[in-house]
Amino acid sequence: MRTELADRFGIDYPIFGFTPSQHVAAAISRAGGLGVLGCVRFNETEELDAVLEWMHENTDGKPFGVDVVMPAKIPTEGSKVDLDSMIPPEHRAFVERTLDDLGVPPLPDGDRVDAGVLGWLHSVARSHVDVAMEHTREYGQIKLIANALGSPPDDVIATAHDNGVLVAALAGAKEHALHHVQAGVDIVIAQGYEGGGHTGEVTSMILWPELVDAVGDSAPVLAAGGVGSGRQIAAAIALGAQGVWMGTYWLTAAEYQLGKAEGVQGPSTVQQALLKATSRDTVRRRIYSGKPARLLKTRWTDAWDAESAPEPLPMPLQNLLVAQAHARISQADNPDVVAMPAGQIVGRCNEIVPVADMIAGMVAEYEEAVKRLGSTLD
Amino acid sequence: MRTELADRFGIDYPIFGFTPSQHVAAAISRAGGLGVLGCVRFNETEELDAVLEWMHENTDGKPFGVDVVMPAKIPTEGSKVDLDSMIPPEHRAFVERTLDDLGVPPLPDGDRVDAGVLGWLHSVARSHVDVAMEHTREYGQIKLIANALGSPPDDVIATAHDNGVLVAALAGAKEHALHHVQAGVDIVIAQGYEGGGHTGEVTSMILWPELVDAVGDSAPVLAAGGVGSGRQIAAAIALGAQGVWMGTYWLTAAEYQLGKAEGVQGPSTVQQALLKATSRDTVRRRIYSGKPARLLKTRWTDAWDAESAPEPLPMPLQNLLVAQAHARISQADNPDVVAMPAGQIVGRCNEIVPVADMIAGMVAEYEEAVKRLGSTLD
Repeated sequence: MRTELADRFGIDYPIFGFTPSQHVAAAISRAGGLGVLGCVRFNETEELDAVLEWMHENTDGKPFGVDVVMPAKIPTEGSKVDLDSMIPPEHRAFVERTLDDLGVPPLPDGDRVDAGVLGWLHSVARSHVDVAMEHTREYGQIKLIANALGSPPDDVIATAHDNGVLVAALAGAKEHALHHVQAGVDIVIAQGYEGGGHTGEVTSMILWPELVDAVGDSAPVLAAGGVGSGRQIAAAIALGAQGVWMGTYWLTAAEYQLGKAEGVQGPSTVQQALLKATSRDTVRRRIYSGKPARLLKTRWTDAWDAESAPEPLPMPLQNLLVAQAHARISQADNPDVVAMPAGQIVGRCNEIVPVADMIAGMVAEYEEAVKRLGSTLD
Repeated sequence: MRTELADRFGIDYPIFGFTPSQHVAAAISRAGGLGVLGCVRFNETEELDAVLEWMHENTDGKPFGVDVVMPAKIPTEGSKVDLDSMIPPEHRAFVERTLDDLGVPPLPDGDRVDAGVLGWLHSVARSHVDVAMEHTREYGQIKLIANALGSPPDDVIATAHDNGVLVAALAGAKEHALHHVQAGVDIVIAQGYEGGGHTGEVTSMILWPELVDAVGDSAPVLAAGGVGSGRQIAAAIALGAQGVWMGTYWLTAAEYQLGKAEGVQGPSTVQQALLKATSRDTVRRRIYSGKPARLLKTRWTDAWDAESAPEPLPMPLQNLLVAQAHARISQADNPDVVAMPAGQIVGRCNEIVPVADMIAGMVAEYEEAVKRLGSTLD
């Protein structure tokens, strides 16, 4: 499973694994792929710094990447309080009422929880970049910075390049991909409709070759949205991608510990929800961030589909609105009430497996698929 | 591009081409694929009989197939008049008002046009089957009967098998595929979300391997939804399909003459609309038949998206409601107001090309993709 892009990164397989878990990211890099740590959950740069240090200590010197969220258009920021005042009281009331209806208890200490909120703000995302750059100047392991929303600002791209770091950006349509390339982005991540999190309307089967053709030699394309098997990786390479970008599939990795209380054995509440979901159990809604994102279908997403539910707010207000709710939901430990981005590949997340086994399984299946294809030319 | 299924049909390439045009279907079979004639537009069995006779005369003895529409649950039939009375006047008023707003003139003779309506009724679909069976008893060329909605009735499957005809059925979800196999269907056509016409929510990248795994050795799977290039065929085979089922892509074949007035040169109105559409210019709505179907996005589909628009009616009432409108739209010759099922692959329909060239191009691209994949194992 070697491609030019894999060689460029010095990795065994062009499997790029996006995950908010440092344990999973490190395991992906150790197993020959490229682990990409999602940074949006880090409100404090010190926390990210410590996690990157941990990554350094647990990746045997192998390369890895970071993923930040910098919207193409810098949103209104101001202080947290200013933004809070822009949220209509009806929306807050709906969220409170819904959580009560779903039996989600208030947070024990009554505190506000901001986890995962500030990372969506432009200034915080830039501080993530700064920490990552410092880190790579010290250890040289961070080889990729990916941006989940639009092209990163010019100076971020320039700084990354100065530090020998390649820049990738997600695209859900041809126009986005062309904009990225023009802005100096090195790698286009083509994310189809079926992917978890923010997606457009065009599916992977259509989008991947369309973006490969659109950017041509200007940039390699990573195929995202719908990958969780060696056959799907073979399909991605057949369609012209130089590798795959996978997110959802790692959520049921054995190393994924986020949301699990200390000492708890077995799958976390979110993992229980993922394990039982089929490919039909996702919805694409604006309720998570204000932009259309694919989520696991649960009683929480159902509540927003009710006729009485309000329209979701624009980014970043919707995120602020639901941040507290997400924290409450997270503590409620009910697999039927979960707020979690997930792609349709969740239908293939049916057991808890160590990352190394996941990758070995995909590599073996990939080789079998490629040989099978070759035999059709005999 | 040889697979077991292609060998079973005695065709050069496992490219199954669904089309309402006998000219296109015959050209696909002549070029080494299997042309499958869509029968839903034939109200009169005599008309279908004559067209099948023409197919016989223009396919050099090569095999071809027919596609009928038999809903799994037999809908209320009764006479045409009974059904008409079930359509709310508000719906009729909305359609009339919309057509006027869009500048679509009434039909010149003021007559009702039923084209394409009766084919949706169960009894008419069965008469299509009867005609096809008679035809294959005479010439032995019809090798496949496909059903676009659910498993065909037991006796239809039995009759097909008695005549040496294989039975295929479309599936948009695992449950449908398993039901087909249990009912005795020979080939499952896995149609992803991106496909034209009736589709489910699960995309091709996810659905194809899911159905391949679900039916196992019970039936080969044809990959539908999103195919219009050799790379996409390679992806389909990589994902475990035994071939591809293509529909939209043939609409811009040079041989496609439907909807074109006698003697008109150049692309038809519908073809003009298809040629300029991108992969983002489709929508999946219930407005065509009552069940979710992907259509070309035009001012007609936009009108149904307006807040003031009524909810579409269930099948077959919605079809009856819009039949007259479709006939008017068809005669209006305005590429911005078209009522046409089309998949997201329409973004790749960018020129009028003869079927033989389309197939030769796909075969060449397929071989290049398979060789490129093989080189990743070096």
